[in-house]
Amino acid sequence: MVQVAIMGHGVVGSGAAEILLTHKQQLFANLGEEIRIKKILDLREFPDSPIADRFTKDFDEILNDLEIRVVAEVMGGINPAYDYVKRLLKAGKSVVTSNKELVAAHGAELLSIAAQENVNFLFEASVGGGIPIIRPMNQCLVANIVDEVAGILNGTTNFILTKMIEESMPFDDALRLAQELGFAERNPEADIEGHDACRKICILASLAYGKHIYPKSVHTEGITGITLEDVRFASDFGCVIKLIGRVKKLKDGRIDIITAPMLVPCKSQLANIDYEFNGIMVRGDCTGDVVFYGKGAGKLPTASAVVADIVDCCQHLKERRFLFWADGDGSNIIDYRESVTAMYLRVKGENALEKAASLFGEIESSEEADVCAFTTAKMVYGDFLEKAEALKAEGVEILSTIRVGDL
Amino acid sequence: MVQVAIMGHGVVGSGAAEILLTHKQQLFANLGEEIRIKKILDLREFPDSPIADRFTKDFDEILNDLEIRVVAEVMGGINPAYDYVKRLLKAGKSVVTSNKELVAAHGAELLSIAAQENVNFLFEASVGGGIPIIRPMNQCLVANIVDEVAGILNGTTNFILTKMIEESMPFDDALRLAQELGFAERNPEADIEGHDACRKICILASLAYGKHIYPKSVHTEGITGITLEDVRFASDFGCVIKLIGRVKKLKDGRIDIITAPMLVPCKSQLANIDYEFNGIMVRGDCTGDVVFYGKGAGKLPTASAVVADIVDCCQHLKERRFLFWADGDGSNIIDYRESVTAMYLRVKGENALEKAASLFGEIESSEEADVCAFTTAKMVYGDFLEKAEALKAEGVEILSTIRVGDL
Repeated sequence: MVQVAIMGHGVVGSGAAEILLTHKQQLFANLGEEIRIKKILDLREFPDSPIADRFTKDFDEILNDLEIRVVAEVMGGINPAYDYVKRLLKAGKSVVTSNKELVAAHGAELLSIAAQENVNFLFEASVGGGIPIIRPMNQCLVANIVDEVAGILNGTTNFILTKMIEESMPFDDALRLAQELGFAERNPEADIEGHDACRKICILASLAYGKHIYPKSVHTEGITGITLEDVRFASDFGCVIKLIGRVKKLKDGRIDIITAPMLVPCKSQLANIDYEFNGIMVRGDCTGDVVFYGKGAGKLPTASAVVADIVDCCQHLKERRFLFWADGDGSNIIDYRESVTAMYLRVKGENALEKAASLFGEIESSEEADVCAFTTAKMVYGDFLEKAEALKAEGVEILSTIRVGDL
Repeated sequence: MVQVAIMGHGVVGSGAAEILLTHKQQLFANLGEEIRIKKILDLREFPDSPIADRFTKDFDEILNDLEIRVVAEVMGGINPAYDYVKRLLKAGKSVVTSNKELVAAHGAELLSIAAQENVNFLFEASVGGGIPIIRPMNQCLVANIVDEVAGILNGTTNFILTKMIEESMPFDDALRLAQELGFAERNPEADIEGHDACRKICILASLAYGKHIYPKSVHTEGITGITLEDVRFASDFGCVIKLIGRVKKLKDGRIDIITAPMLVPCKSQLANIDYEFNGIMVRGDCTGDVVFYGKGAGKLPTASAVVADIVDCCQHLKERRFLFWADGDGSNIIDYRESVTAMYLRVKGENALEKAASLFGEIESSEEADVCAFTTAKMVYGDFLEKAEALKAEGVEILSTIRVGDL
């Protein structure tokens, strides 16, 4: 029997407890041992829980319990999760977490402590909810050099964009609906401003390239500026608009990483990933493109990834699983203005397209009543910014600019 | 340093050797040890290989070499692979294989020997080529009860069907093109008759449900009967035709497994998997649908999965990875005539649709010049066969019948 603890009894935590109780037989068959929840940490009371007697409000009861070998941190946020996880690892306990904020902010340090203590720190649930991605990337793709990772990593924004695309629902209405359905939080900033997707691409990039990439090093744009006009024009260009987290390895070994809305060609595997679903493309030098798709959030999907990590820890109590990246200072990341991308612009003004063509060279264009849009060839983003200024100087109003992803 | 051997220097074997040599640094970084190819078994000579001195024609040189801890079997076929793998496992060596025929025919026995000897028998490359599927199913989905697995598991037939769908290319031409491009073998029977896809769904079903399912227990239909008329009518019904391997767990615990072409609704995630690509949907009770997509075959994709398994074996030389299923006698599988499915029929004859409607109840139909097609509601397949006979008795010629998948 392996004794475990769960810190947090919110959506994911209660889901993990539920799976450990309801899937006991399944887990026993796979592990050959029983997994028993010894403690659940939460400041609230849950008198109706079938294991109400195992709740505690005192972290030390978990920290100091030598029988507890594995702890799931599913509280979310940095404080006190960061402090708790550090102390648990130092006490020789393996920790699993669904907390992308924590992993994106302190992953390198926590992995390093885990390595020192010869315990595991796993976080499959931190990216893609129930979609297996951390473990396949770390293990199955071990024989690949990862050229690129690109994904739809945030279900809330993907739900909003899908409603805008499929039903021409304005952004505000789609956001409100997402909130009503429980896909978006009351304060949706972390989602719609791209911070959540940014944390996740940081985790995948750190894993792929072996050095921690902090969110502050990553240029991040949200979807609040996307309008139904953009959605319509994107369709004219054979594309849909998706919020993409993306990292590429450049020929000189440096890394190009960004979180931003992009026009995604309809034939791309990422174009068909709709509503609250997530999809992640990993481009290996040997495998080519491999895509992982599924529910990126939700109680049981995320909880099942937490439980899979608990099982993995139980299987590797003696021998540590290899999952590691070093700390990073961002020096391997190019400035986002150096990045090469094609661009989409929605513009207004007399002879706007002629002026655009004379500045940008070959463009593809589409027009509505008093507004038009065009896409450019690939160019360095910094050059694009200069040309966009020049276009404005010629009296053209730029209503919207979005990257065109070659996905 | 871990010493390994590779048996077979064909497409996959030479790819595995290439990756072990070219990705040395990457592998060392992940494993913390060097992996060295000590022997390669092949009856042919490869004087131009950079490691020409390590080739041998004598299996015993590998079997009796105590330094060799891990062996990759990439010869294909049952003989002598089966005998060799058994002897290697009994000699205490871990074995990895890309050989789906071997795993589908003898997986339970080989897994049982591996368990006795406390070594690993891994076969990530046997299904889906470079797509991680065995390991994610076994590990990440450990906290799920798998309700269903359905996939496009054969790249050759998917290439042929895609050419038929996208370019209205007749079956024979598409097959010839696949052969020219190296996607189909000179004798394409195993692919186009569905045997290859059947072996793969057997492996996934054995893994999902813990008992070996042998290909002979699985009703298997190929794609040789599919015509361009069927492709057109499928499109009228909002579907594409795909060769699907599928296994479902029924409420009574029994298993419904089949390999057959199916009409797949265009909105399904499996509908957009085209050409030589494979895609596998795993429906877990907690995760919901998770889809894995990528190149299902080819030298480097498949070889990279073989190398990932080699690395996993090297990481688990002392402690065995848990991957196991027991032998099975097929008693948990329902007869395919008990299976419930909607059907598509292409028919010819006077008042064919009226006669069909009076027999099958509500149908959806479409007509061309002198031929028409319809789809039925879901019914037990055995009842369908009876009604189809009744339809024939009324003078209606049945040109084609295909299952409609609720995928």
